[in-house]
Amino acid sequence: MQLEVEDNKVGGTNTTATIAPERQELAQFPQDNVDYYQKIKWNGWGDTRKFLHTLEPSGTIAITTPTASAVPLPSLANYIKKELTLNGQTSNLENTPSIQLDQINIAAPRPINPSFERELQSIFTPDQLKTDKFARITHVYGKSIRDLVRLRIGQINNAPDLIILPQSHDEVEKLMQSANKYNVIVIAYGGGSNIVGACEPVTTDRFVVSVDMRRMNKVLWVDRREMTACIQVGIMGPDLEKELRKSGVSLGHDPDSFEFSTLGGWLATCSSGHQSDKYGDIEDMAVSFKTVTPTGTLELRNGARAGAGINYKHIILGSEGTLGIITEAVMRVHPLPQAEEYFGFMFPSFTHAINALEQIRRSDILPTMIRIYDPDETRLSFSSKPSKGAFSEFISSAIKHVCLSIIGFEGSKKQVDFHKKSVFDILSKNGAFGLGQSPGKTWAEKRYDLPYIRDFLLNHNMWVDVAETTVSWSSLLPLWKEAKQAFNDHFRSKGIPSWICAHISHTYSNGVCLYFIFASKQNADNEMTPYTEGKRLMTDIVLKHGGAISHHHGVGYEHVPWMNRYVSNGWINVYRKIKEVVDPKNICNPRKLMPTQEEENGQKKYLFDVLNVKQPKL
Amino acid sequence: MQLEVEDNKVGGTNTTATIAPERQELAQFPQDNVDYYQKIKWNGWGDTRKFLHTLEPSGTIAITTPTASAVPLPSLANYIKKELTLNGQTSNLENTPSIQLDQINIAAPRPINPSFERELQSIFTPDQLKTDKFARITHVYGKSIRDLVRLRIGQINNAPDLIILPQSHDEVEKLMQSANKYNVIVIAYGGGSNIVGACEPVTTDRFVVSVDMRRMNKVLWVDRREMTACIQVGIMGPDLEKELRKSGVSLGHDPDSFEFSTLGGWLATCSSGHQSDKYGDIEDMAVSFKTVTPTGTLELRNGARAGAGINYKHIILGSEGTLGIITEAVMRVHPLPQAEEYFGFMFPSFTHAINALEQIRRSDILPTMIRIYDPDETRLSFSSKPSKGAFSEFISSAIKHVCLSIIGFEGSKKQVDFHKKSVFDILSKNGAFGLGQSPGKTWAEKRYDLPYIRDFLLNHNMWVDVAETTVSWSSLLPLWKEAKQAFNDHFRSKGIPSWICAHISHTYSNGVCLYFIFASKQNADNEMTPYTEGKRLMTDIVLKHGGAISHHHGVGYEHVPWMNRYVSNGWINVYRKIKEVVDPKNICNPRKLMPTQEEENGQKKYLFDVLNVKQPKL
Repeated sequence: MQLEVEDNKVGGTNTTATIAPERQELAQFPQDNVDYYQKIKWNGWGDTRKFLHTLEPSGTIAITTPTASAVPLPSLANYIKKELTLNGQTSNLENTPSIQLDQINIAAPRPINPSFERELQSIFTPDQLKTDKFARITHVYGKSIRDLVRLRIGQINNAPDLIILPQSHDEVEKLMQSANKYNVIVIAYGGGSNIVGACEPVTTDRFVVSVDMRRMNKVLWVDRREMTACIQVGIMGPDLEKELRKSGVSLGHDPDSFEFSTLGGWLATCSSGHQSDKYGDIEDMAVSFKTVTPTGTLELRNGARAGAGINYKHIILGSEGTLGIITEAVMRVHPLPQAEEYFGFMFPSFTHAINALEQIRRSDILPTMIRIYDPDETRLSFSSKPSKGAFSEFISSAIKHVCLSIIGFEGSKKQVDFHKKSVFDILSKNGAFGLGQSPGKTWAEKRYDLPYIRDFLLNHNMWVDVAETTVSWSSLLPLWKEAKQAFNDHFRSKGIPSWICAHISHTYSNGVCLYFIFASKQNADNEMTPYTEGKRLMTDIVLKHGGAISHHHGVGYEHVPWMNRYVSNGWINVYRKIKEVVDPKNICNPRKLMPTQEEENGQKKYLFDVLNVKQPKL
Repeated sequence: MQLEVEDNKVGGTNTTATIAPERQELAQFPQDNVDYYQKIKWNGWGDTRKFLHTLEPSGTIAITTPTASAVPLPSLANYIKKELTLNGQTSNLENTPSIQLDQINIAAPRPINPSFERELQSIFTPDQLKTDKFARITHVYGKSIRDLVRLRIGQINNAPDLIILPQSHDEVEKLMQSANKYNVIVIAYGGGSNIVGACEPVTTDRFVVSVDMRRMNKVLWVDRREMTACIQVGIMGPDLEKELRKSGVSLGHDPDSFEFSTLGGWLATCSSGHQSDKYGDIEDMAVSFKTVTPTGTLELRNGARAGAGINYKHIILGSEGTLGIITEAVMRVHPLPQAEEYFGFMFPSFTHAINALEQIRRSDILPTMIRIYDPDETRLSFSSKPSKGAFSEFISSAIKHVCLSIIGFEGSKKQVDFHKKSVFDILSKNGAFGLGQSPGKTWAEKRYDLPYIRDFLLNHNMWVDVAETTVSWSSLLPLWKEAKQAFNDHFRSKGIPSWICAHISHTYSNGVCLYFIFASKQNADNEMTPYTEGKRLMTDIVLKHGGAISHHHGVGYEHVPWMNRYVSNGWINVYRKIKEVVDPKNICNPRKLMPTQEEENGQKKYLFDVLNVKQPKL
């Protein structure tokens, strides 16, 4: 029987409870006039109305979205069973559902200081202050595998005591002053899409406020002469682009998390979007912004590049809420491109593709985007397509070495044509086979979907994690080979089926972003060691090959144990001094970004390890 | 009688002493196996063998270079007389020669701490430690108008006590440790080309070492795969490019000071080169570098862009030696361009030129360089040409509104052709008249020559200063108009002939670099008020229009009085904390970059004003 799903309808009777518990939660929340955190999955990725599920009795995997019900992905189940393998044994898709929201109990909020409470009541309306269980549960974690597993088993130890939804820069300033006065921890919360533990309350000694920025979602002005826009940073990706497009401009920042992340999150974590090769990374787009710190607001000059002392914007970019809260930003924008053309190419091997990529980079005539999938991710890509064409079948079954590449061009028609010609010449010299624009369209449609597959796998006794890095051209292939081999060796030697793939997503003159996705079977009791083992293994190998600890995911607490190896110790001291002057009581997102002195000295365990405890069975 | 000058010959008899005293000094120094500071003018700009002078009895101005003697610049004298005007009265070129080196007396060095001296002797060879008068005089100032005037009247109050010429990173580390131990002030000295007082010893309480980095001039390696090069930062522009070109690559950084500045100076001051529109500003080229601070060496990761916390390189870029000394840098390089084509264009007006520039910027197809001279600088440009063509004459006499533009393209032939076509279309739509490649060639040959004209004017009872800024598109014309008007009004109302011109040299999506050159008659007793008045006036107007305090000249002590207006106070505190942690004794280039607390509170005068004292007559 095919699953019945009510398309695009909110609050109706729910017929899919056992397969997609998210639908049940959804019934509680109307989709209009609610805050963003009420619209998205509390225990998974993204839109509550979008999820993968199996069709019975065939076992075919299907996807349901707000606009299409139960669209079969005919090759995916087979791909998972065959690839997540050990000694030729196929894996089964066992059901491992999440706990339901109403089954979760969390501790009551800490008592609030009555003076602090009075001050908050003078700044905010009651509607901006939330202490209900749902608000607290949806602001405790991000979307890492550890976060989701903990949510799915109901392990929530450090929920923030209060959620505040400010609506203006002034409100954030007043809040910060008050929080500093009463020694209250303040954690900026954007889209909550981070996967490095960036927003999790991890100290237990003080009252914790999670500052949900998503009501600060206005584009304040667009200046088409300077090609800049002033934007409240709580705006989500799609809303931002929708607003900018009304003025005929775009930011051009499109990270994987685009649909569920905010401008503030992008700035605070040094985000990078799919088209960064043309439009730059977020630091290139940021002209100026206001940062509210416990000791005052730090402002920057709105103007083009200047060489007049230190460029202070870079002290906030990447500071991940540990120095304060960014409220409004002036961003560079660009006119909407006249042409946007995305093509698929198939290379005989990953090496062929990398050679072509390097030659394109050297040619100085760059596409807007070049993504290259290694053979394993190429097969995943074809296997997760809704249609089951002959070519897809051929790829996903027979060929072990070919690599898919998606190459996009944006700009004026004449510029796109010129760039295409140059790039296509290099591609054909490197054995690339053109697939036309159809794979480009598919990529554009599906580009945000991978986390939904992860949710499905979590529902079926598997886990998936990712690791990304910036690596030099010389270390790219050695890192790719060693990481893949080491990951599979590690898990398979323990009798656990595993799978790992990678793609290249951003290029620079001196390196690329290499992105790994890896998975294995969950162990029976949902114990977290496998995820932390996988993550540790991958991070060690990345650093061994001189890779960056992250290209765009950031640090949070997940990468802190490696920061002493990654950042020269002198800089750690500099960071601590900056922190001391802007946040003397350490109220802003403590224990993130950099090791504490105690962690460094071994007097305190890294959070990475503290949270690697054996969990109760489901 | 035409002046006799011995071409390209060093140490010979000098027949030009009264006109070009530099020649006399030169005789003392062989050109080989000497340090850079011994090769360049102690009281003017650049090569001792290159200078402007008049030919008697005609009064024609001529230029002598190492390869050409007394080449007449037939229109220049007339231009100066006519333009540096007041109520139609022409100005005469009176002789106001510099003092001679042997007429200058400077105070003996402060006594050196014997322990410090012993440590230095264990680190350095005697040849690396200089205390002679010439070494001390050539490391006290940069090349600002105030610096040159003070040198030319022999006013040298704060010469460094010791010049050290390190040859390796390790030597700088040892020196810094020792200096910190004995509380000795350390001032990094690159090419000494700065015009903001960046390297001047300005404290009188401690022993001062000027660290001349110019022996650290090796390209350590070039990696053609990553397109990076590791370079000792004391290397001068021409040597750097010569070395890189051996590997077929270029840095592409070509500031006005290129011939007499170092990579370290570029990094420490956030420099920007002529071709920044294509190759980026220095911060875009810098991958990583080592900075020796009093509390240890700060290192950065050599790799492509990463989003993993704060990008600490930006704390050193622009810090102007106040946090430590940069020793070695990994820089992005690029293959030598296949084609380099520079063209001249003439616009009917500055407004026409700016309209074209804005349209080119919006088209997203950018030349490598666009320089636009306003009508006054256009006439100067044609008047300082060696040949006296009919067109030059026409321009320099009759036309008051036309604007010269030099537009360059670099890259592969096909890329240059594509860009040219797009840019030329926009130019012709905006009334530009093509002059072919000859003005481009002239620009390339003469691009570093302006400071030599300044020296000539100093020799002839005039002074010249510059002010540059980054300004938004919207404020560009209003700033240009107001600054020019206000400058001339100010001086002419006092009965002093004056002159001001401007050009645009770098473009960004949200603004341009606007560069003013201004001059007036020196007052009779060489008192410095006119220069500081001019500088103050220009800086106030720049800030009024939202311009940057500098686009690429930096801060030094000249711009410090404006920093409280330019940088939010919170950032000043952050800077002070950073300084405190890396340089707790404040030994690195004190009183530069940021106001001290005492200056801010009015307890101490800004150096800008302290140095504005009435000087003795020549």
